[in-house]
Amino acid sequence: MNEASGASATVPSGGNPPHLVDGVVQDLEQLLSDGSYDEVKTLLEPVQPVDIAEAIGSLPLILQALAFRLLSKNEAIEVYEYLDPVVQQSLLDRLRSGEVLELVEEMSPDDRVRLFDELPAKVVRRLLSELSPAERRVTAQLLGYEPETGGRLMTTEFVDLKEFHSAEEALSIVRRQASDTETIYSLYVTDRERHLTGILSLRDLVTADPGDLIADVMTRDVVSVRTDTDQEEVARAIQRYDFLALPVVDREQRLVGIVTVDDVIDVIEQEATRDLYAAGAVQAGDEDDYFQSNLFVVARRRVVWLAVLVIANGLTTQVIAMNDEVLKQVVLLAAFIPLLIGTGGNVGAQSSTVVIRGLSTQRIQALGLMKAILRETAAGALLGLLMLVMVVPFAWWRGEDPLIGAAVGISLMAISTLAATAGAALPLLFDRMGLDPALMSAPFITTATDVAGVLIYLRTASWLLSQGQVGGL
Amino acid sequence: MNEASGASATVPSGGNPPHLVDGVVQDLEQLLSDGSYDEVKTLLEPVQPVDIAEAIGSLPLILQALAFRLLSKNEAIEVYEYLDPVVQQSLLDRLRSGEVLELVEEMSPDDRVRLFDELPAKVVRRLLSELSPAERRVTAQLLGYEPETGGRLMTTEFVDLKEFHSAEEALSIVRRQASDTETIYSLYVTDRERHLTGILSLRDLVTADPGDLIADVMTRDVVSVRTDTDQEEVARAIQRYDFLALPVVDREQRLVGIVTVDDVIDVIEQEATRDLYAAGAVQAGDEDDYFQSNLFVVARRRVVWLAVLVIANGLTTQVIAMNDEVLKQVVLLAAFIPLLIGTGGNVGAQSSTVVIRGLSTQRIQALGLMKAILRETAAGALLGLLMLVMVVPFAWWRGEDPLIGAAVGISLMAISTLAATAGAALPLLFDRMGLDPALMSAPFITTATDVAGVLIYLRTASWLLSQGQVGGL
Repeated sequence: MNEASGASATVPSGGNPPHLVDGVVQDLEQLLSDGSYDEVKTLLEPVQPVDIAEAIGSLPLILQALAFRLLSKNEAIEVYEYLDPVVQQSLLDRLRSGEVLELVEEMSPDDRVRLFDELPAKVVRRLLSELSPAERRVTAQLLGYEPETGGRLMTTEFVDLKEFHSAEEALSIVRRQASDTETIYSLYVTDRERHLTGILSLRDLVTADPGDLIADVMTRDVVSVRTDTDQEEVARAIQRYDFLALPVVDREQRLVGIVTVDDVIDVIEQEATRDLYAAGAVQAGDEDDYFQSNLFVVARRRVVWLAVLVIANGLTTQVIAMNDEVLKQVVLLAAFIPLLIGTGGNVGAQSSTVVIRGLSTQRIQALGLMKAILRETAAGALLGLLMLVMVVPFAWWRGEDPLIGAAVGISLMAISTLAATAGAALPLLFDRMGLDPALMSAPFITTATDVAGVLIYLRTASWLLSQGQVGGL
Repeated sequence: MNEASGASATVPSGGNPPHLVDGVVQDLEQLLSDGSYDEVKTLLEPVQPVDIAEAIGSLPLILQALAFRLLSKNEAIEVYEYLDPVVQQSLLDRLRSGEVLELVEEMSPDDRVRLFDELPAKVVRRLLSELSPAERRVTAQLLGYEPETGGRLMTTEFVDLKEFHSAEEALSIVRRQASDTETIYSLYVTDRERHLTGILSLRDLVTADPGDLIADVMTRDVVSVRTDTDQEEVARAIQRYDFLALPVVDREQRLVGIVTVDDVIDVIEQEATRDLYAAGAVQAGDEDDYFQSNLFVVARRRVVWLAVLVIANGLTTQVIAMNDEVLKQVVLLAAFIPLLIGTGGNVGAQSSTVVIRGLSTQRIQALGLMKAILRETAAGALLGLLMLVMVVPFAWWRGEDPLIGAAVGISLMAISTLAATAGAALPLLFDRMGLDPALMSAPFITTATDVAGVLIYLRTASWLLSQGQVGGL
């Protein structure tokens, strides 16, 4: 067997993880073109579904449906869920409608909803109408929840036990349902009205005596989320408690679904990408599909923020133009403008970065908001003082005028302190107002600092100049 | 019972998740001061271990050991693993040495190693010498692996089956070992030399016929990592394949441990914090403990990057000072310097953000490096053109001199294109050289763009001025 096909793949140290599929794709394309379909089956047999999905996605369009048809039914469903939305759609067009229906019918409800989110409304309506009544009802229910909530993230396939079951009965229920549920490791106990009364793990169940009642084995201390809980909070809860799954209840505390840890990892990554993109003034899309977008989508996602920042930068230009008298007298003052506003921007960016991340990971709450802002102010003043020791001697020498050294020194302290305070306070203020604090990330703090910094610098220089003319500096 | 004590806590929608422990801490402190120890036990009984840990951490130092002693032995071990390192250490000082030893002996090996990482070497040596031989050997083995590798992240407690076991035998082995292993949901099959030959899930096992041989139920297509695999790659593998656990093998393919999904979530979050801090020019610590650090630690983590950036900004000052002839002739040219370098910085920051994130999430590889850079160059030129339409009319009007409009327009295009190219190419270059691409994040791209941007702008203006003097512009 081909070692590269990933039979027993070990992720090595150093460098990027191996692209297990690289070898597979070439062999696959060759075998498909040759019509050696049995060899394709042998080649793909030991490969993980996610790797098969990547391999199929890399094939020429014309071979994708062919390769997909060679998978066993169960494998096809698993592989399909991992395919890129673009490939999922093109497969829907190329498969026979019977094949499509079988595929969509067998997908787990949460994956089906994620697929429907990407498809044109017309296709969704047609597919919905052709689903079996049970699956149609579940799908319509999930589609009814707001995007990025517990309800959208959950699956409705879970093992539901009753308190009067014995451990032995429960274990045979688990065995029967094992193939139809997303997880059998977290088990849920409900009463006659479907209210969640307790949970137990499969570990609890297999270690219990066969005759024990579920009511005595389960734990009644359940952490749950609601269908309208934000997906980031769902993720935080699973992360905090190290759970494999979390029950989702409606307003009446009835169990309607579960969220599993694998979905939550993707949410944590998606939220981190959003924070990072916000820090770089890039608008994030629904998915991290940036590298599949075309040039105009790329430009559109950036031009809005750039335009806002250019207008803000225009204010800086205005401030300088309105204070050009002092520049006309001492032209070298202009040489220090980028240094001053650059340093202010960097200090402000540092403060906003730690505050925004602290809000995201919910660690800043432990410190208290006022205390966090004051700490950043103090840090800004301290850092300003340290910069001053480096910059003032340079300004004195390079500026050829003691006025410049003095103006640079005073401004540097003021700008650093102000930038650190604003960098901490603005994201916290936005958070308090219910807006996304990441909007007040580095680029905006930097641009705001520019305007204030230039004003402080030129007014200080102008004041020093008037003092000098009187006092003979 | 007090509702706030979290018996059945539902994380609601909107706002921050409830701090379940807020109510508990007050009640706990009161009850401990009153000496009502039985009530403390009743209060804490339904609370999750991680919440108990947070509550104990919020108590006055003098009450922490008291509260901790009231926990049952099993609960104490679970709670201890969630405590803050500072609280863990202070408890070690306050508990009797017999209590400490029992605690450390019973911890799971991976958590013990994480604790030892935080303790002074002297304390670690003493504790190691007092551990039972088996636990001492395991702990020394784990401590021998490099930090942030699969070996450091793994636990050595897993269920190890043989191919000749029947499903029934295997299930009774699982039952016996259930309390001593980190997970019983992923089961590992080894041969006589401890080579990993297959895996199966507890789901496979409970659905198998009692008489089936493990050899026939297990899958031989195993994805594993090595003890020296970087922790980020371990995390990516678990995320990619939606695994609950991943086997860790040594160079001879012998199974030495497993990494579980809960540890991996923390790694993904830690790596995202690092990327974000790098984007804000903040040095990340070992842990996300920023909000527990004092002011001088905070300043130290930032001053190095700030100093580097100030020196780079000093170059911009030099460039302006050396080209001050043109400023002396047209002082208003200075008013557009912040706008030009600000825009260049923002365009560069956008490019470096998407490229660095793409490298982290390993999505950029699909596009190809050269193509990624060229795409950013094209995006930069396109964005420059769009900015030009906004900025040049403003420059024409505000600059009071057609020279300024022309110089601003030409420079803007050049700076945008250059910034986007550098923003994409520098992180990719760093990655190729084996350096952390996040070092080439927004602040550095911005500062580098400043120098180049000012030079382009002033040289363009100077050239236009000389043309104008000849041509009568």
